[in-house]
Amino acid sequence: MRKTWATSSVDLHLDVAGPRVRAGLEAALRDAVRTGRLAAGTRLPSSRALAADLGIARNTVAEAFGQLVAEGWLTARQGSGTEVAGPPPVVGAAPAAGPPSGAGAEPNDDAGPADALTGIGRGGPRYQLRAGLPDLSSFPRSAWLAAARRALNAAPALALAYGDPRGRPELRRALAEYLARARGVRVSPDRIVVCNGFTQGLALLCQVLADRGAAAVAVEAYGLGVSMATLAAHRLTPALLPVDGGGAVLEGAADVPAMLLTPAHQFPLGPALAARRRAQAIRWAAATGGLVIEDDYDGEFRYDRQPVGALQALAPEHVVYAGTASKTLAPGLRLGWLVLPARLVRDVADAKALADAQTSSFEQLTLAEFIGSGGYDRHIRRSRLGYRRRRDRLVAELARRAPGVRLTGIAAGLHAVAELPAGLSEQDVTERAARRGLGVEGLGSYARGGHTRGPALVIGYAAPPEHAFTGALARLCATLADSEG
Amino acid sequence: MRKTWATSSVDLHLDVAGPRVRAGLEAALRDAVRTGRLAAGTRLPSSRALAADLGIARNTVAEAFGQLVAEGWLTARQGSGTEVAGPPPVVGAAPAAGPPSGAGAEPNDDAGPADALTGIGRGGPRYQLRAGLPDLSSFPRSAWLAAARRALNAAPALALAYGDPRGRPELRRALAEYLARARGVRVSPDRIVVCNGFTQGLALLCQVLADRGAAAVAVEAYGLGVSMATLAAHRLTPALLPVDGGGAVLEGAADVPAMLLTPAHQFPLGPALAARRRAQAIRWAAATGGLVIEDDYDGEFRYDRQPVGALQALAPEHVVYAGTASKTLAPGLRLGWLVLPARLVRDVADAKALADAQTSSFEQLTLAEFIGSGGYDRHIRRSRLGYRRRRDRLVAELARRAPGVRLTGIAAGLHAVAELPAGLSEQDVTERAARRGLGVEGLGSYARGGHTRGPALVIGYAAPPEHAFTGALARLCATLADSEG
Repeated sequence: MRKTWATSSVDLHLDVAGPRVRAGLEAALRDAVRTGRLAAGTRLPSSRALAADLGIARNTVAEAFGQLVAEGWLTARQGSGTEVAGPPPVVGAAPAAGPPSGAGAEPNDDAGPADALTGIGRGGPRYQLRAGLPDLSSFPRSAWLAAARRALNAAPALALAYGDPRGRPELRRALAEYLARARGVRVSPDRIVVCNGFTQGLALLCQVLADRGAAAVAVEAYGLGVSMATLAAHRLTPALLPVDGGGAVLEGAADVPAMLLTPAHQFPLGPALAARRRAQAIRWAAATGGLVIEDDYDGEFRYDRQPVGALQALAPEHVVYAGTASKTLAPGLRLGWLVLPARLVRDVADAKALADAQTSSFEQLTLAEFIGSGGYDRHIRRSRLGYRRRRDRLVAELARRAPGVRLTGIAAGLHAVAELPAGLSEQDVTERAARRGLGVEGLGSYARGGHTRGPALVIGYAAPPEHAFTGALARLCATLADSEG
Repeated sequence: MRKTWATSSVDLHLDVAGPRVRAGLEAALRDAVRTGRLAAGTRLPSSRALAADLGIARNTVAEAFGQLVAEGWLTARQGSGTEVAGPPPVVGAAPAAGPPSGAGAEPNDDAGPADALTGIGRGGPRYQLRAGLPDLSSFPRSAWLAAARRALNAAPALALAYGDPRGRPELRRALAEYLARARGVRVSPDRIVVCNGFTQGLALLCQVLADRGAAAVAVEAYGLGVSMATLAAHRLTPALLPVDGGGAVLEGAADVPAMLLTPAHQFPLGPALAARRRAQAIRWAAATGGLVIEDDYDGEFRYDRQPVGALQALAPEHVVYAGTASKTLAPGLRLGWLVLPARLVRDVADAKALADAQTSSFEQLTLAEFIGSGGYDRHIRRSRLGYRRRRDRLVAELARRAPGVRLTGIAAGLHAVAELPAGLSEQDVTERAARRGLGVEGLGSYARGGHTRGPALVIGYAAPPEHAFTGALARLCATLADSEG
């Protein structure tokens, strides 16, 4: 049985026949989001209306919506139904597949999810202020290639073979030195497992936790949808922690074996985890044997005072520190690292060995050389200065052009949150922005449960190339000035 | 309760207290193998003797041995008990972790599993003829770096962001052209998922198969232990297919949903899958809806006649073709690819997205440029010529110095099988070789169930650097001549 649900903008053909109606509905909705037939921000009909249209039970629709909200495809908006979430990949992960087509035909290979993300590809807005990407046009290509040349020419033949699944010793030594110095991590090279970005790091940790009997992981109520999908893939239930001005509110984690936090700079809301909550997290871990996973996705970028040191340093046997080159260099490198408590090193290394043997030794050796030669620090310093200037311009321009907007989360990172005047709708504002050629996301895209806060935009000011930032900022200000007016 | 089992060479401390005695015994044995305390080839005491020593039930020991044989850590040798298998990683995968140590201390970072494999590290034999590695000293460093430079300088900034989890379109286009031309694969770029070597490709396939309800996968009775560990990690039971001169005997796969084969060059025994069995495999797949996974790990290297084309070409909707750069270039690159039936593309791409978002776009762009510029073909032609010369020298020297040895599997690939005169023991011969400074493995190391064939060595003639091949060959011949005499 093939059913069709038509809105003004999409004809959504759903194959909902057979015994697995709910699974079919979920798959059809996932596909529609993935392929862009249902655009981010599209409001879905109510479960009652869709159930009536399709001639299936309302519960089936509601359950499918709930599952897709949990997986990050949809967002449940308090009081205003369900809508399609923003593009999945933002902080440390990528979305599900682009649209693989049937036999023979090749789909739009050049307009995959990354294009939806950056808007550089076909069809996307010309300007983008989406969170989660550094300025890739400033990637230090020459310095990186020079490091690759030095590294590969110096490497013994053995370095090109299979090696320790934890990663090349050269890189683990360089990272240990760097993380201790720059982030205050308490680390020795044997505690590090190099992985393919935070995406893989989290997947390996979820696997080890699930193998040890974990059933749930606490996560911040605002964050990346893709992490929810990773949890779901390992049959781990998310327990949502509210977020306030002191970061995550930890009481909700009492009964879970692990919690995933962004202590240095809550993503996307921006506060650092308050000192009393840092202590609380460590007390919780020590008392319950629980594990804190510290996602330090952009800890290098802090503008107004000393960086917030790693929470891990307080209790290295209770905290996994997770870092990445996705913000400091580029996500396409797929380089991340876990610093692990002793009790987890072997299991995580075993999981890594079975997952893909090891991360590319070529990339690892290049990063080791890049760190060792000072190139990594130089690039971070240069980037930090550039992003800080952009942030200052954002603050100044918004104060001038849209004084009703309150900008928060500006002390650090590659993005800020613009709280909109009450009564404005995120969807209206992002649609206005899109009509001006600007892609920007509502905070609701990052609500892992319901969107319980006032309307706001998440503004990723790092992503545009330098030459496009001015245009993007002008469009943002014009949109907000209009909206206020 | 802490128990100790001592042999002449190792004191094996086993923590076997508590309710999970069998799990504890398995873990202790895995650790001992992994850390090298139990060396490859070490014969274990009988389950009866070990059970008596440890004061636990014999069944418990026998079950633990059975599990570790299934996982590839141990080898059950017909009529002669159980022994420690050879180093796990050979064709397309790496072993479990090296020995992570406790807090603070850094273990032998430079003597991980890869060193055990190649013997270049501390403590290993000076010469190595182990299967599964190309000559890494001939890796085309300059040409690869030049390709990396051209690729990175030409790449749009977008290419450094997150992209399609199937991989960069540039690489999938280059691979589609190459695989059709060189291996006869029926392929379009949209059917390819680039992955981190065959290890990850197999893991993704196992995950998708298990998610679809598969409980077992047929595998050849001789092959890599690590693939067994991958199956076990996804709770898939191996069904062992005997191997004869026509490759795998397929009748045993009747009731399973998938079979993993090495059709072009059975690993490690060497025959190509006979034409009637190729047809049989396709009939089986078409009749049952089963899936054939074609591990084409060294299909580029065939010496005496035209390469055996990919089985996949007979039935692209029933066969997954799996290829790798681990033999043509280097395992450290972690580059492999799956060519998938339409019905699997989306699920495998989704699994890849959740596993690690995508493979490094830097490596992918470099390989695309390397293939497109002709560098890949040139390197393969040069390697093929060099390996063929080594094979010819191996054949000639063994015929002269050890006429009682029968060399098989010599038509293709990077290794051959030397069948020893009846009555010789693989262990005796490999120990003699080790005393001469040569690392070489017995066929029993690759027995996934019991070792049911006569004594033989698996000789990887590609691995040594050119300057070391002569010395390795001389030591092999001397060992075999002694053994025969």
